[in-house]
Amino acid sequence: MCVCSFIIHNKDTFFNNATRSRIVHHILQRIKYEEGKNKIGLNRLLTNGSYEAAFPLHEGSYRSKNSIRTHGAENHRHLLYECWASWGVWYKYQPLDLVRRYFGEKIGLYFAWLGWYTGMLFPAAFIGLFVFLYGVMTLDHCQVSKEVCQATDIIMCPVCDKYCPFMKLSDSCVYAKVTHLFDNGATVFFAVFMAVWATVFLEFWKRRRAVIAYDWDLIDWEEEEEEIRPQFEAKYSKKERMNPISGKPEPYQAFADKCSRLIVSASGIFFMICVVIAAVFGIVIYRVVTVSTFAAFKWALIRNNSQVATTGTAVCINFCIIMLLNVLYEKVALLLTNLEQPRTESEWENSFTLKMFLFQFVNLNSSTFYIAFFLGRLIQNWWTRRKVRQEHGPERKISFPQWERDYNLQPMNAYGLFDEYLEMILQFGFTTIFVAAFPLAPLLALLNNIIEIRLDAYKFVTQWRRPLASRAKDIGIWYGILEGIGILSVITNAFVIAITSDFIPRLVYAYKYGPCAGQGEAGQKCMVGYVNASLSVFRISDFENRSEPESDGSEFSGTPLKYCRYRDYRDPPHSLVPYGYTLQFWHVLAARLAFIIVFEHLVFCIKHLISYLIPDLPKDLRDRMRREKYLIQEMMYEAELERLQKERKERKKNGKAHHNEWP
Amino acid sequence: MCVCSFIIHNKDTFFNNATRSRIVHHILQRIKYEEGKNKIGLNRLLTNGSYEAAFPLHEGSYRSKNSIRTHGAENHRHLLYECWASWGVWYKYQPLDLVRRYFGEKIGLYFAWLGWYTGMLFPAAFIGLFVFLYGVMTLDHCQVSKEVCQATDIIMCPVCDKYCPFMKLSDSCVYAKVTHLFDNGATVFFAVFMAVWATVFLEFWKRRRAVIAYDWDLIDWEEEEEEIRPQFEAKYSKKERMNPISGKPEPYQAFADKCSRLIVSASGIFFMICVVIAAVFGIVIYRVVTVSTFAAFKWALIRNNSQVATTGTAVCINFCIIMLLNVLYEKVALLLTNLEQPRTESEWENSFTLKMFLFQFVNLNSSTFYIAFFLGRLIQNWWTRRKVRQEHGPERKISFPQWERDYNLQPMNAYGLFDEYLEMILQFGFTTIFVAAFPLAPLLALLNNIIEIRLDAYKFVTQWRRPLASRAKDIGIWYGILEGIGILSVITNAFVIAITSDFIPRLVYAYKYGPCAGQGEAGQKCMVGYVNASLSVFRISDFENRSEPESDGSEFSGTPLKYCRYRDYRDPPHSLVPYGYTLQFWHVLAARLAFIIVFEHLVFCIKHLISYLIPDLPKDLRDRMRREKYLIQEMMYEAELERLQKERKERKKNGKAHHNEWP
Repeated sequence: MCVCSFIIHNKDTFFNNATRSRIVHHILQRIKYEEGKNKIGLNRLLTNGSYEAAFPLHEGSYRSKNSIRTHGAENHRHLLYECWASWGVWYKYQPLDLVRRYFGEKIGLYFAWLGWYTGMLFPAAFIGLFVFLYGVMTLDHCQVSKEVCQATDIIMCPVCDKYCPFMKLSDSCVYAKVTHLFDNGATVFFAVFMAVWATVFLEFWKRRRAVIAYDWDLIDWEEEEEEIRPQFEAKYSKKERMNPISGKPEPYQAFADKCSRLIVSASGIFFMICVVIAAVFGIVIYRVVTVSTFAAFKWALIRNNSQVATTGTAVCINFCIIMLLNVLYEKVALLLTNLEQPRTESEWENSFTLKMFLFQFVNLNSSTFYIAFFLGRLIQNWWTRRKVRQEHGPERKISFPQWERDYNLQPMNAYGLFDEYLEMILQFGFTTIFVAAFPLAPLLALLNNIIEIRLDAYKFVTQWRRPLASRAKDIGIWYGILEGIGILSVITNAFVIAITSDFIPRLVYAYKYGPCAGQGEAGQKCMVGYVNASLSVFRISDFENRSEPESDGSEFSGTPLKYCRYRDYRDPPHSLVPYGYTLQFWHVLAARLAFIIVFEHLVFCIKHLISYLIPDLPKDLRDRMRREKYLIQEMMYEAELERLQKERKERKKNGKAHHNEWP
Repeated sequence: MCVCSFIIHNKDTFFNNATRSRIVHHILQRIKYEEGKNKIGLNRLLTNGSYEAAFPLHEGSYRSKNSIRTHGAENHRHLLYECWASWGVWYKYQPLDLVRRYFGEKIGLYFAWLGWYTGMLFPAAFIGLFVFLYGVMTLDHCQVSKEVCQATDIIMCPVCDKYCPFMKLSDSCVYAKVTHLFDNGATVFFAVFMAVWATVFLEFWKRRRAVIAYDWDLIDWEEEEEEIRPQFEAKYSKKERMNPISGKPEPYQAFADKCSRLIVSASGIFFMICVVIAAVFGIVIYRVVTVSTFAAFKWALIRNNSQVATTGTAVCINFCIIMLLNVLYEKVALLLTNLEQPRTESEWENSFTLKMFLFQFVNLNSSTFYIAFFLGRLIQNWWTRRKVRQEHGPERKISFPQWERDYNLQPMNAYGLFDEYLEMILQFGFTTIFVAAFPLAPLLALLNNIIEIRLDAYKFVTQWRRPLASRAKDIGIWYGILEGIGILSVITNAFVIAITSDFIPRLVYAYKYGPCAGQGEAGQKCMVGYVNASLSVFRISDFENRSEPESDGSEFSGTPLKYCRYRDYRDPPHSLVPYGYTLQFWHVLAARLAFIIVFEHLVFCIKHLISYLIPDLPKDLRDRMRREKYLIQEMMYEAELERLQKERKERKKNGKAHHNEWP
């Protein structure tokens, strides 16, 4: 164990010298392996309770400039606190080299990525704000919302069986205006922009990562062969086989066993996702059922606001279910990952990450919750910030030794940076995937992240024990997830614009049915009459008995209503095929489908072109790397040339001796 | 120049030792560079005519077992001829290691790729044949062609203005049957299969390439810095800048200059592609115009076969245009590539390759020509094979020296393997892209390739001078082109099935309009009446004056016809909107577009999944590589441990000397 203590003690001072640090890292890895294998060393002492904790020490108090080292070395913790974790420096670049030096490459890369993402959010936030403002500015000129607000004479059919009342179309005036804010011509442009933005983001991150990897000397570094998890070893110790890499015997999981475990695990995930989807459908059914219950409620207050009451309770129930499922699912994911019996720690981590991400993504599905997610995080961060500032009282000057002071801090959580990454990647997903539904998302994300960086920094520097430094070349499985989100976002945006938004029906109306049909124009004046054209007529006497409304609609004009209107493109009741789809319906449907095809082909084409055009390495870095290679080759060339000439001379000498040979 | 001659002479014997060969390669590269730079050496002597040719020698006659070397070494050329280039061994694997040894890695890789491609064609050819046979088998049961053949009472409208006659629908009976062979339910399945096949092909080629690269010691090998083309140097010699890699001054092309040249070149390509497309449209217009001219021809033979005459002459003209454009375009491509002034040879090659491929691909567009391409190549190959066999007379035993015998052979063409690759990649493109239009393509490609391999081998071994061996890690820009084709093929197949085939209208009819509408069945009996439903009615009196046919159709029933039929979904003339689109038209359109969306999402999803699931390295190879790395690390570890312990001992000794220090 002598080497071990020597290394650990000297680790910090070693970290700058690249070659040495690589060897040290390997030796540490090796020792860790031996420890895990033979159940000796620090971990053993920790598990059996001989030691309570083991952690690297901070370099001193984050308030004082003095390091605990006696050599008068600088206290990097204090430096980090001053120029990274304070709120005052929120507008500055992060001191990434210092972060790497103090916390290691893995944590350094997380903050590099977070900073990069935040920086890239600026243009997106700016354009998103502009799109939103465009919606606000054109609100008064919008023909559709104007028509909705003026339509006091259009009576809409009840939204539920029996107890729901007839309503004027003009009652949904506010809703129509809010819709215009998020669903206007600029939204389509913004969706294309964000798809391109996501691609550019990933492509430039590759370049940024390459620069960081070069600067931090990670280019040639490769993960060592990992040790086997003790759980895996315990489970499969009976069957052994030769490890093809190390040539030593090791426990072995049969293929059939692995497969069956994977299948069980996959069906577990599938089941959980089905539960989430069932919950969503349950909420929808709940709304349909309760809206009529509330409409028939004995309290007038609830009866008159049955819609609001339904939505309110539905949201509450949905929220409870989501929270419940979240707690439940983390347990299930842990159970399933352990059931899979991954061979190594990193396999375990990847498996768990994928499970958690998939589930969280499906769970936080509805747009309500993703807006809640943004605002919630934002408010939470502001709150934490406030609290932090208040706690920021004068430091007590009791001079505990550093190890005792650090012992009182929280250890970094068990899954490493998992929570930090998960939150950011979910945010990235919501920002790009539902961008057509909410163009302010990038702005909220930006504000959140500016706080997030400093808050995370504060946590790492002042609240947590110093984590064990570890190396990483990239952000791991998260990069693949980001790429998947990039592709998914194009598809969902195409469908959101084509199917759920009013964009396509309006275009079809303007060019084919409106007052300027056939003239190739689509200004606001061409939208005159759109609202009326998008509503179909229903004959009230066609109601089935059980769904016939209680009211006969005489509150509007004094006499019982004969007809009401509903949103669809169907023939009127007195036509050849009553309530059959009109030609306009098929027009709109064809246009919707054509839009999806055109949008997807166009955007994917742009995406591919961009990722083809942007090289993975910046020219500057590539030149530098090639220059290094060139110099090595030059040296090799000189040496080899010398050697050959020497050989040749010797050969000539020998040739003079034996005249009979010719090479 | 002494080193040079030494190296060249000893090159063959060196090639097996990996490290040495790498250094030799580097030195050769360097000498070549110096030669190019200072205009000295062999190239100089070749250009000024002092030497007529310079080439590596073959190892002897391909017929005799004796090598020209006196040491009794084996004649590899003979060996290659016996077990690679003879027709008798067509069913055997290629001796790739021997090919690589004799011709170098670049040519070895071409044949490895060709062999791999041919092998992968087997399953595709088999399934394609099966799909075709399915068409043949179901021909008699096909309700649609049956109805077409029996429809003697349905009179079709003339296909051109004025001179074209009315025809019975049953006249197109043969055409309907042939269509069924290539356009039945199995075609859709086959299109999906081929899209998946193309992905699997590329993914497994990556693995195969990795194995070859490992076996041929190309893993760590990297292209050296390339020399600048003399043309580039001559053009830009006035402006110099420091090369960031070698640190030496070199001619420099300004960014604006480069951009303007690229733009000119790109517009040149664009123009040429426009010319091709214009030619295609020209042919279409030619057909429309001449069909009535031929119909009014004074010779009865031509008049009665006006359709055949039109198609025949159109094909001939099209063929001539394609040939003409091909010749013209090669010159244009050369001109444009030289105009671009690429910096290095390989930049020149890539630029030229991309241009030629793009153009050839657009030029050989119509399905007629791609079938002609297949059959043409096939017949050409058979013919060459016959000729080769006939020439295969007894060898004249005149013992010219090897360099004179080789001098009489043809030099390998200027663009290296360009022609070979281009032809194969075009074939791959046609096989995958238009597979929905012609399921026998993979079979024809397979037959062609089996001959192609041996014919190419024969050319290389017996007809050409031995080419200079050169290294390559992969098949270069062609891999990217193959990937592009893989993506394009999914899109074209989706559109071919949705738009040009009858698949979707039939499905819509079966499920919505036919005798079993709404029952969820789609057997042949549900297709009853499809032909009639897919034809609209035209009132002959609605013909405009200039297009009214000369015949009044009285040849069919004795009285002048009142109505004729045409293929479309339009309302009859006496409806509310005469000749307006029917509901069925919109149904079919929506179904077509929906099919494109579903097909593309499904197939791209499968493609992504496959390329995610198939690792780029075979497990076996990955283990071997990791084992090597592991052993190196173990050695490093042992050495470093020893060093550290020694250091520690010394430190202890010193520590005893100076007791006051604690590390």
